Amino acid sequence: MPGCIFCDIVAGRIPATELYRDEDFLAFRDIDPQAPVHILLIPLRHIPGLSDLTPDDADLTGRLILTATGIAADQGLDDAGYRFVVNCGRQGGQAVDHLHLHILGGRQMQWPPG
Amino acid sequence: MPGCIFCDIVAGRIPATELYRDEDFLAFRDIDPQAPVHILLIPLRHIPGLSDLTPDDADLTGRLILTATGIAADQGLDDAGYRFVVNCGRQGGQAVDHLHLHILGGRQMQWPPG
Repeated sequence: MPGCIFCDIVAGRIPATELYRDEDFLAFRDIDPQAPVHILLIPLRHIPGLSDLTPDDADLTGRLILTATGIAADQGLDDAGYRFVVNCGRQGGQAVDHLHLHILGGRQMQWPPG
Repeated sequence: MPGCIFCDIVAGRIPATELYRDEDFLAFRDIDPQAPVHILLIPLRHIPGLSDLTPDDADLTGRLILTATGIAADQGLDDAGYRFVVNCGRQGGQAVDHLHLHILGGRQMQWPPG
């Protein structure tokens, strides 16, 4: 999607610290980390946000979550714990209109969640 | 699972303000809401947390997310936006060891997410 910085990261036009990539997903470090571990996992395909998912995306979405739990495990977060956050729209605090899941860990996460 | 309060809610042994139920999932209002809309969506099956999901759960997990986006839409949150949060383990802030997704909306969510 022209003008989407996450599509530019997927295409290599904008650099990022990539941690994982397969045929459907890319994970990279958040450039403004809110925890010692703060990773973004995105689908390579441009999906603007949660509210744009259709039932046809259920399989992709399930594998997105399972990929994220695998990354959390690889980061050594399973024992201490971690938090997943997905923002949708303005009040959700979505900063980039390309679906992305935040994986946060390495410190005690607080409540409320923002 | 004996001793699991969310399994007790599924079974009707503990009351909750139910908003949605199908053959796999149940949604109910959080008893300690952190936003004007604060709903929990859980699988009926006792899965302790994110790190217990296996590849066999990908389909269920995808439908969990799609069910949650449907609930957000039904709650009228699509235009303004909303946030999904899933806590895993101690540092994630997981309070009940039965997988649950928080749907939060109705106010501006802040950053960091806890």
